[in-house]
Amino acid sequence: MARKKRGLLIVVSGPAGVGKGTVDAALMAKHPEIKMSVSATTRAPRPGEVEGVHYFFRTKEEFDRMIEENAFLEYMHVFGMNYYGTPKAFVESERDKGNHVILEIDVQGALKVKEACPDAVMVFIAPPSLKILKDRLVGRGTETQESIDVRTAAALEELKQLPKYDYMVVNDVVDEAVAEMESILCAELVRTSRNTELITKLTGGETI
Amino acid sequence: MARKKRGLLIVVSGPAGVGKGTVDAALMAKHPEIKMSVSATTRAPRPGEVEGVHYFFRTKEEFDRMIEENAFLEYMHVFGMNYYGTPKAFVESERDKGNHVILEIDVQGALKVKEACPDAVMVFIAPPSLKILKDRLVGRGTETQESIDVRTAAALEELKQLPKYDYMVVNDVVDEAVAEMESILCAELVRTSRNTELITKLTGGETI
Repeated sequence: MARKKRGLLIVVSGPAGVGKGTVDAALMAKHPEIKMSVSATTRAPRPGEVEGVHYFFRTKEEFDRMIEENAFLEYMHVFGMNYYGTPKAFVESERDKGNHVILEIDVQGALKVKEACPDAVMVFIAPPSLKILKDRLVGRGTETQESIDVRTAAALEELKQLPKYDYMVVNDVVDEAVAEMESILCAELVRTSRNTELITKLTGGETI
Repeated sequence: MARKKRGLLIVVSGPAGVGKGTVDAALMAKHPEIKMSVSATTRAPRPGEVEGVHYFFRTKEEFDRMIEENAFLEYMHVFGMNYYGTPKAFVESERDKGNHVILEIDVQGALKVKEACPDAVMVFIAPPSLKILKDRLVGRGTETQESIDVRTAAALEELKQLPKYDYMVVNDVVDEAVAEMESILCAELVRTSRNTELITKLTGGETI
């Protein structure tokens, strides 16, 4: 991850239980230049939650104003529930510093982000098989049979959206999944489409 | 470079003196599953050249028949000169075995290959600057001033074609260039578009 330039926005989706959080945390532990996007929400902070770290806590009025100001990459509001959204400002300022931003988000939100930000890198973290995903959910020991069935059915629907993503990382062995994420970032940084300034410099701005 | 499946075709271009051969050789030394494409030619073998290793040596009649049989990914024939071409059979059989094939070729040939083989990965190896490329050519000590000027002018024309490639690897430090090539290969292997079978298996072929 050499050359200093605008950082990447990496959108990461994947079914519950696939280990997105584990992979992303391991990746960030190795690369301090990778940051996790911080969401805004209208829900109240829980004990220990820190403003700007876990969430940006906003009132409903503040959130509505941000929507009007087009300050979100995407947001979600189910009637009668709390709002959640991805503020543009955090993502943009980190990318401008040359940092990469990971945005963990469901498929629906991911597709909205891709529309708002066509240069986002879309990564889907997939289980080796649906059977293994189900076994992992069972292994947690915290899910009811009904919840496992609901999550497995939801996972199948999400997996069907996989072709809309650029890359699929199968989380079988975490270290291998992390290495694949690193390769994706490195390869995306050397895409010609992300190096137009360098190309211009090579072909024009120089005397031979 | 985990999962065993159809290998990649990596088209590598770059100006004379940029160090394509050095980067590719270092990459292949680390990864025996990467093979160099072998060209066919009508020119006579030079001492030490081995059939099927350095070239496939063919008569003009054999070459013409291969053209008729659509047996080339691309070929070039300048009137009165020898023919050169990239036989499909070698590339296909290696890719079917799960090996990756590197094809070092000029920009014109590269674009023909991309047309014949849209899933080819297009990599341009660029110098850090035109000045450095020129210095390297001078440093060889084997080029006349005229030849250096011709090559530098040709390099500038080739660099202008850079946006037609998927990736640009700047060959400043060879090991870094090799690492970038490795990342490109790894990332391309986890592209969703190259994993349709796996996606079908995940979403359909299984019982939950």
